[in-house]
Amino acid sequence: MTTDKPTIAVVGGTGNLGWALARQWAKAGYPVIIGSRDAAKAEAEASRLNGELASPAMRGASNGEAARQADIIVVTVPFAFQAAILEDIRPMVAGKLVVDTTVPLMPPKVARVQLPPEGCAALVAQRMLGDDAQLVSAFHNVAAHKLATDENVDCDVLIFGDQKAARARVVALAEAAGLRGLHAGPLANSAAAEALTSVMIFINKNYAADGAGICITGSIAQLVD
Amino acid sequence: MTTDKPTIAVVGGTGNLGWALARQWAKAGYPVIIGSRDAAKAEAEASRLNGELASPAMRGASNGEAARQADIIVVTVPFAFQAAILEDIRPMVAGKLVVDTTVPLMPPKVARVQLPPEGCAALVAQRMLGDDAQLVSAFHNVAAHKLATDENVDCDVLIFGDQKAARARVVALAEAAGLRGLHAGPLANSAAAEALTSVMIFINKNYAADGAGICITGSIAQLVD
Repeated sequence: MTTDKPTIAVVGGTGNLGWALARQWAKAGYPVIIGSRDAAKAEAEASRLNGELASPAMRGASNGEAARQADIIVVTVPFAFQAAILEDIRPMVAGKLVVDTTVPLMPPKVARVQLPPEGCAALVAQRMLGDDAQLVSAFHNVAAHKLATDENVDCDVLIFGDQKAARARVVALAEAAGLRGLHAGPLANSAAAEALTSVMIFINKNYAADGAGICITGSIAQLVD
Repeated sequence: MTTDKPTIAVVGGTGNLGWALARQWAKAGYPVIIGSRDAAKAEAEASRLNGELASPAMRGASNGEAARQADIIVVTVPFAFQAAILEDIRPMVAGKLVVDTTVPLMPPKVARVQLPPEGCAALVAQRMLGDDAQLVSAFHNVAAHKLATDENVDCDVLIFGDQKAARARVVALAEAAGLRGLHAGPLANSAAAEALTSVMIFINKNYAADGAGICITGSIAQLVD
C-alpha cells in the first residue's frame, strides 16, 4: 500500500489511549507504528489490528524504533514514564511533529488536580525536547474506552502548541480520529486540559457517569488568520 | 418583601460578571446586595436594577458592609484585587458560604494560562480565609456579557470546594442563575476552570467566536452519595 499520508508512531501504543488512537488513524488510512517498551508485544498487537481492520497499515516496534521510523510521534504514556520515554526518543525527534498527550495524574489521588512545578506536562516535554521538535499537546480529555469503539465520541480536543502550523496538523489528526480539534493556545495553556482530566475523573465517579467529555460551546466556525 | 432565601452579597457587583450574577439572582427572588468599593455607585446600580426588574430585592453597599449583611458572599473581582478584597471582608465571613469566582488573568497576556504559585486563585483564597468560611469557587467560565442578557447561556458551571454540602449550595445558585452547576472536586481542582478561562479567551479571539463556553458531555445524571 502506498499513501501520501505521514507515518505516525504511537509511543505507548499498547496502552488504552494509544491503542485507541492508533486504531482510529489506521482506519483513516495513516500508516501507523505501534510502539511499546516490548517490541514483540507491539508487533503482536499490530498484527491483530491489521486482521481486525483488514488493513496492512499497522506495524509494531520498540518505542525508539517506532519514533525513528515515523514522521509524526504521538506520546501516550503515564506521567510517571513521560520523562524516561522522552529521553529515549529525543535523538529521533528533530524536525518532527511530536504530540504529547501526557496528563500529570498522581495516583492514588487521580481525581485531584496536581500539576507539576513546571506548570504542566506539556512544559515538561518542552524542557526535555528543546526546540528540536515541533511540540504540540492534545488528546488529554478523550475517554480512551469510548475512542476505542466505533461510536461517535462527544468530546472536543483542545490543541496546544507555540507554533500554529504544528497545531493545525494536530487539528487534522483529531479529525481523522473522529474528533473536533480546536486551536487552544500556547503549550502553557495545556495546564487547562491536563487539569480538566482530573475534573472528568471526579465527575465520572461522583455522578456515576461513563466517560464524561468536554465540548466548547458558542459559535466557533472560522479560524482567524 | 419577605423570603426564605438567603441574602447574597456580590462583592465587586458593579463589574461585568458580578452585575450579571446579581441580576440573575434578584430575578430568581434572592435578596441581593451589590457591593462596590464605591458604596454610592453600588446603591445607584441597585436602584436602577430594581426599576428594571420591577423588584425591590436589590440593595447597594460598600463591599465590606455588603459582606457583613449577607448570608452568602460572592467575590467577583479581578485577580489583582483579590487579596486586598478578601482581607477587607475576612472579618465578615465566619460560618458563611463564600463563593470565589477569581480567575488569575495576568494582563496583557490574558489568553495565556498563568496560574499563581499557590496553584490557583481558589487556593489563594483558602490561604487568606482559613477555615472560617465555607469556601467554594465557581463561575469562572461563563461569559458575563451573555449572562447579562435573558438569553439561554450554553455553559456549565464547574463547582469546586472541599465540603460537598457547600458545593451543593452553589449548584443551587448556578441553577438559580440559569446555568447547570456540577460538583467538580476539591478547591485544588479549581485550577482547571481558572486555566480554561484563558483558553476560552484564546478561542474567542482565534475563531472570532463570541462567548465560548464549556459543556460537560456524557451521561451525567444522578449524584452518587
